Amino acid sequence: MQFMRHLMSPLDLSVGELNDILDLACDIEANPKAYAHKCDGLKLATLFYEPSTRTRLSFEAAMMNLGGNVLGFSSAASSSASKGESVSDTIRMVSCYADICAMRHPKEGAPLVASMKSSIPVINAGDGGHQHPTQTLTDLMTIRSLKGRLDNLTIGLCGDLKFGRTVHSLIHAMIRYPNVRFILISPEELRIPSYIREDVLQKNNIPFEEVVRLEEALPKLDLLYMTRVQRERFFNEEDYVRMKDFYILDKKKMALAGPDMLVLHPLPRVNEISVEVDDDPRAVYFKQVQYGVYVRMALILTLLKWRDTTC
Amino acid sequence: MQFMRHLMSPLDLSVGELNDILDLACDIEANPKAYAHKCDGLKLATLFYEPSTRTRLSFEAAMMNLGGNVLGFSSAASSSASKGESVSDTIRMVSCYADICAMRHPKEGAPLVASMKSSIPVINAGDGGHQHPTQTLTDLMTIRSLKGRLDNLTIGLCGDLKFGRTVHSLIHAMIRYPNVRFILISPEELRIPSYIREDVLQKNNIPFEEVVRLEEALPKLDLLYMTRVQRERFFNEEDYVRMKDFYILDKKKMALAGPDMLVLHPLPRVNEISVEVDDDPRAVYFKQVQYGVYVRMALILTLLKWRDTTC
Amino acid sequence: MQFMRHLMSPLDLSVGELNDILDLACDIEANPKAYAHKCDGLKLATLFYEPSTRTRLSFEAAMMNLGGNVLGFSSAASSSASKGESVSDTIRMVSCYADICAMRHPKEGAPLVASMKSSIPVINAGDGGHQHPTQTLTDLMTIRSLKGRLDNLTIGLCGDLKFGRTVHSLIHAMIRYPNVRFILISPEELRIPSYIREDVLQKNNIPFEEVVRLEEALPKLDLLYMTRVQRERFFNEEDYVRMKDFYILDKKKMALAGPDMLVLHPLPRVNEISVEVDDDPRAVYFKQVQYGVYVRMALILTLLKWRDTTC
Repeated sequence: MQFMRHLMSPLDLSVGELNDILDLACDIEANPKAYAHKCDGLKLATLFYEPSTRTRLSFEAAMMNLGGNVLGFSSAASSSASKGESVSDTIRMVSCYADICAMRHPKEGAPLVASMKSSIPVINAGDGGHQHPTQTLTDLMTIRSLKGRLDNLTIGLCGDLKFGRTVHSLIHAMIRYPNVRFILISPEELRIPSYIREDVLQKNNIPFEEVVRLEEALPKLDLLYMTRVQRERFFNEEDYVRMKDFYILDKKKMALAGPDMLVLHPLPRVNEISVEVDDDPRAVYFKQVQYGVYVRMALILTLLKWRDTTC
Repeated sequence: MQFMRHLMSPLDLSVGELNDILDLACDIEANPKAYAHKCDGLKLATLFYEPSTRTRLSFEAAMMNLGGNVLGFSSAASSSASKGESVSDTIRMVSCYADICAMRHPKEGAPLVASMKSSIPVINAGDGGHQHPTQTLTDLMTIRSLKGRLDNLTIGLCGDLKFGRTVHSLIHAMIRYPNVRFILISPEELRIPSYIREDVLQKNNIPFEEVVRLEEALPKLDLLYMTRVQRERFFNEEDYVRMKDFYILDKKKMALAGPDMLVLHPLPRVNEISVEVDDDPRAVYFKQVQYGVYVRMALILTLLKWRDTTC
Repeated sequence: MQFMRHLMSPLDLSVGELNDILDLACDIEANPKAYAHKCDGLKLATLFYEPSTRTRLSFEAAMMNLGGNVLGFSSAASSSASKGESVSDTIRMVSCYADICAMRHPKEGAPLVASMKSSIPVINAGDGGHQHPTQTLTDLMTIRSLKGRLDNLTIGLCGDLKFGRTVHSLIHAMIRYPNVRFILISPEELRIPSYIREDVLQKNNIPFEEVVRLEEALPKLDLLYMTRVQRERFFNEEDYVRMKDFYILDKKKMALAGPDMLVLHPLPRVNEISVEVDDDPRAVYFKQVQYGVYVRMALILTLLKWRDTTC
């Protein structure tokens, strides 16, 4: 017996449920044709109150790969939000138009508010600096597929650790697997927030160290998770310009890493990974994009299955 | 023998034709799967020169539910209107791309101008303060489905009766049924225009009264049609702020109404209906949204059938 | 043996390849149902970094007519370009989402840069003032279908010959056929650039003359290709206003032309062709739109076939 469920945070899924979704995503990767009509006649609504081409197109490709249709909007300007409608009312409307919904919103918690009035499953496709669970599912699938495991890993997280929600989500998700350790690589100004350092890492006895030099961390890593220093997270342009180039991964730095260290990145990248690294077989950030489609297909199928088995 | 027809106003349809469309919509509601492939291989163009998520998504969901595809644009900014093209030329282009078209335009009469050069059926999806016929079809289907009739009704119209085109259209549509009376509830500044009071209501001997207090009207009503006080219809912000809260429907006011009085609203609502009313079984404004999809499906099928039987 | 190919310029196709595409487009026109499922399960990405309703909808209609799906964006504002992503990275992402891509970009060469990193065929859907190959394919199909040939033609090109990329592309494309001559009709300020006059026309011994009066040219023409004087190509508003009305085609001027002279226009037109000309059987600019869909269908099928036969 299952109830209709939404996905607000990666932690909404138990380790077992997550495993099932990743298994399903792997089966989709192996047999895409077997899934090409699973969502025939069904519709996904993509409600993007702020633009995010990557995430939106990934959801749309996922639904289309399943045989389903897509409708929605790609920015608040072309939505009725400008007429003062609440997300609660919008989702009730959209519940009449679609079978499942992916919502991106600049305000933290907006998808959660929507889910409370929704009669269709709502997937949080990013809410401000808060959560972006399908990015985390993508990261987990990439790691599991290419390293063969989610445990026993030394993970370097590099760049904007203060504002980078993908990094925060990944930490939350990875500490549920045994023997994972982190090396946190950032300038002083962009260190991991204390509520993660203390309440998540220290409290759970997760080994970690904080370093300021990427070179220092590289030889020890199984994974390097690079992040963009996002212009929009800074209060002023000067701070951004001063800090953005501190942590650029290039060929020279890659030479310091082991032969099996994978480089992930949530994309888009600006210049924090030099394009000369793209052809390195350890650079898997473009493969991540493809895994993102498979895992979203698996997620859509799973949430629709749970909805249909509601008692 | 039929000619290809467009829908500019609800009154373009005779009472009999309208009845057929509502009957078809009811059959669609009862047997959606029987209609799931009626528009396979056909395309709807949604030409929205001003954003309207609700109406656009309703049309898109309707066409997709029929197995068809959708293309178009959701705001003038992403159209070639910015290059100075006339709607007459745009519709001739679109006639090569799609089989039927829904057009929203800020200028009154623009869809009519388009329809004169179109080789595909054009549906007016709202033209300025003028007409919005599919909203009216939605309202009629909601009333007929939930009250069981379109005649013998006392209808309260509340809010912005001066600028609210949905209210004007509904009056025009309802006076074609026997024994309908209206109670017009608005502030002095937003009273129904004299051309409707005199040329429509008085001229046709339709009983009506005008009141300023919602409380006064509530006990007498079979239906209460609430409307938003639209910010964009006001000349200045002060007038809007002063008037918008005059006519807010809440639980206390609902207690004054009869047990069968239905509350409709074209949506989006801002605060003219308190959210505490949403769970009242008499509040049917979210059901209206669902009826809007069915009636648009019926309309698309009907206009395409008329086109195909053109001699 | 074929390799996956992109389409950046009409000249990327040999005369023989182009002929095959036009033959295929004609067969599609004659038997559209035979092609209605050729792209079932495939996806076209429309990446429009600047709005162009006409071109975008033509591609979308083409892909839908083939049974395929469409995803993408219609302006840079709703893309991740605003986050500083390069087109090279964007196309690698999109390669995971779609099977073929049409890219419009304000910068010359952007689609070429994208194609170098793409694992799916890229079609240049217009790059600044540079190329717009599918417009040229459309023009060629229109001419071949309605004149029955691409050789032995006297072609008048009228309007903005300086900035008009459709005119430049058409000249490049037409000089590959025997016995084609041009009459170039423009104000002094908008004459054809010298690199076309000298390096293309004179160098290849193509007969041409330059005239300033449309009336003078009309009696000699097999085809008149009218172009819009595009506001956005001018440095200031005054120049635009002064020049835009010089070359307006009306009924009176049409009386000077022969009974078989066809009038083409890439559209949108503003006022350079009077609407009174629209009903003249020689005015074929709206037929061009329909040919544009067929030829894009043929192009999509051809590029996908080449991709699939890659060795």
